[in-house]
Amino acid sequence: MKVAVIGYGTVGSGVVEVLLRNHDTIVRRNSLDELELKYILDIRDFPLDPNKEKFTKDFNDILNDEEVGVVVETMGGIHPAFEFTSQLLSKGKSVVTSNKELVAQKGFELLNLAKENKANYMFEASVGGGIPIIRPINNCLSANEIIEIAGILNGTTNYILTKMINDGMSMDEALMRAQQKGYAEKDPTADIEGIDAGRKICILADLAFGKHVFPDQVYTQGIRDITLEDVEFVKDFGGVIKLIGSAKRIPDGRICAQVRPSVILKNSQLATTSGVFNAILVRGNALGDAVFYGRGAGKLPTASAVVADVIDCARHQGKTKILPWGENEKDFVAPNDLISARFYVRAYNVNDGSLAELDRLLGNIRVLERKNQSPDEFAFVTEEIVEKDLREKLGKIGSVEIKSLIPVTDY
Amino acid sequence: MKVAVIGYGTVGSGVVEVLLRNHDTIVRRNSLDELELKYILDIRDFPLDPNKEKFTKDFNDILNDEEVGVVVETMGGIHPAFEFTSQLLSKGKSVVTSNKELVAQKGFELLNLAKENKANYMFEASVGGGIPIIRPINNCLSANEIIEIAGILNGTTNYILTKMINDGMSMDEALMRAQQKGYAEKDPTADIEGIDAGRKICILADLAFGKHVFPDQVYTQGIRDITLEDVEFVKDFGGVIKLIGSAKRIPDGRICAQVRPSVILKNSQLATTSGVFNAILVRGNALGDAVFYGRGAGKLPTASAVVADVIDCARHQGKTKILPWGENEKDFVAPNDLISARFYVRAYNVNDGSLAELDRLLGNIRVLERKNQSPDEFAFVTEEIVEKDLREKLGKIGSVEIKSLIPVTDY
Repeated sequence: MKVAVIGYGTVGSGVVEVLLRNHDTIVRRNSLDELELKYILDIRDFPLDPNKEKFTKDFNDILNDEEVGVVVETMGGIHPAFEFTSQLLSKGKSVVTSNKELVAQKGFELLNLAKENKANYMFEASVGGGIPIIRPINNCLSANEIIEIAGILNGTTNYILTKMINDGMSMDEALMRAQQKGYAEKDPTADIEGIDAGRKICILADLAFGKHVFPDQVYTQGIRDITLEDVEFVKDFGGVIKLIGSAKRIPDGRICAQVRPSVILKNSQLATTSGVFNAILVRGNALGDAVFYGRGAGKLPTASAVVADVIDCARHQGKTKILPWGENEKDFVAPNDLISARFYVRAYNVNDGSLAELDRLLGNIRVLERKNQSPDEFAFVTEEIVEKDLREKLGKIGSVEIKSLIPVTDY
Repeated sequence: MKVAVIGYGTVGSGVVEVLLRNHDTIVRRNSLDELELKYILDIRDFPLDPNKEKFTKDFNDILNDEEVGVVVETMGGIHPAFEFTSQLLSKGKSVVTSNKELVAQKGFELLNLAKENKANYMFEASVGGGIPIIRPINNCLSANEIIEIAGILNGTTNYILTKMINDGMSMDEALMRAQQKGYAEKDPTADIEGIDAGRKICILADLAFGKHVFPDQVYTQGIRDITLEDVEFVKDFGGVIKLIGSAKRIPDGRICAQVRPSVILKNSQLATTSGVFNAILVRGNALGDAVFYGRGAGKLPTASAVVADVIDCARHQGKTKILPWGENEKDFVAPNDLISARFYVRAYNVNDGSLAELDRLLGNIRVLERKNQSPDEFAFVTEEIVEKDLREKLGKIGSVEIKSLIPVTDY
């Protein structure tokens, strides 16, 4: 089978490298006849590239070449990736991608198009980089009702939070450091604001719960407001703050989907996921909790996942793999404040009167301390409560100013 | 498709529970027509069991029923599990198992028999209980050359070591506690001596490196000789002792396969794997390190993996999945002391003369301390060295008595 790669950026060039470097192992281990790279499409010129004879700027070369059975789309963005993918699938060619934005937005549509044309649309690399997660959810956990899926899905923000937690670095300094190291982009908005993680939790929720969830249905809160005060108070509680994307079944059958800073207790596998690493937890009704950990980004790890999909397409020519990904249902995603959890709260302007009120309304709270705490600063963790109820109760307490309100996870 | 379960013990009854409890979800999520439990085979009577009309004591009922497409073998042991499995596969029925002893000993043979008869032999539950690991190695990591696979593969010993590390409990006391909790059997030999983990590392090595490795080719050392002194010295090094099963490619192309206590540094995902949990690390040349964490045993988690295989068999009737598992090659497994690593050593009868010798032969060592250390007790960690060379050098130092020699892992 012949392969084409569209988009010769970091991931695309990694795919080419893995395809060529591990070619013999790949063909032997997977009992394939052949797996040969035929085209690389990019609008830029790469005159010094060792594969320069494979380059083309004309998409039709790939679309119309009947030898090409699998195309790797590593362009990113919705347009023209969506149009290219649609045309390829319509011709019965399988498409493999790391493009989470496109999968989160158009996954259902493209999966259906693949099915109609006896092709495959695969996207293992779109979540968690090199970490196997899409396939395990579909195959290995297929006997479970999935209760929750949650994870550290963005390496940039996890690097920044790790620096704040371990080195007491301020967010601005940690962000600068991340940019210097190439872990954060010049414009880090999509990472810092949780948009990137939001796309990934959509894809995971789609597969775990069987209905398409759009990014704008996910409550998304980034790490911008997390301070070193929060980091220290949470340390006193025996936890760390991580940016967690999660989708969870609630008692009425709907799901809550959100990306937001969350408190993770220290002995959790997610708490020890540091730096640019990612980890994804799946909670099934038979399995209990399983965690998948590894490099969530980077050239070769991501390419590892892309090429695994290419191999799978080559193994299953003419046969579409079934994914439990249904159409969007508008009311399937509930407001995120219906989640029930313990919450960490940092408040100001607290006086004896408001303390008595807090006590009366919330019952048992665990008060936290930090070094150099300012006199009117008050931090605590509640018992388990529905977020909506908590916010209502806190709203009743006159002058108190709430600066942070962060759920404590139970994994 | 109709299913039969052979062996109604902990795992077998869990399989029945998951098949019945999650039936609707399973059929819907996996687009199956039907997946119905038809027989349960056990030599014992279960007069009060809600499924009692499904019981049989005659294996031929299952073997000769053409409706039965998948059989779950959860008997354990080699005989008669091997004979039953062979007969079923010969009739073109797929077999799913959690029987690590049988897979480790006869995997290659049974996989070939399955292939000849267009059936499948699947064993996701044989390693890591509910943790997806067999399928990820085969599919998700298929683009990688695997460099090493290593893990905490036995919950009983991990529970005991965790009690020693966290609570300063003696090994005997921790073992008794494990037996009380049902985590260890009355005769705990297979767990404590590393035999159980040895079978599992065989299965992982077979899939990672493509040749059958027999349990007697794996250097197997249990936890019997680990003391609280070791636990404390290793703490001073910033690590913990875990029983690790590993298979690793060495520079001459062969592999080393072993089960033995190993020092894991504290920030590793394997270090924070506590109690009865398991974790498996896979190091690929593109992926880097990925870790799979979860419940390595237990009724429902193990059943979760078994039923996932059953579903996979139902989805792929008449089509054998390809596994990269080749024949045994006697010389493929090298002596385990060819591994190169840093080593933790605890020694006695050390005097000024032997210290000078140590210094001369080993160069840089890091000396460790513990509370209430006895005057002639001396513990240290070496630089990276091949184990064989280290043992030779230590053998040259006259009176020194080596009590512990434990590799330090680099993951």
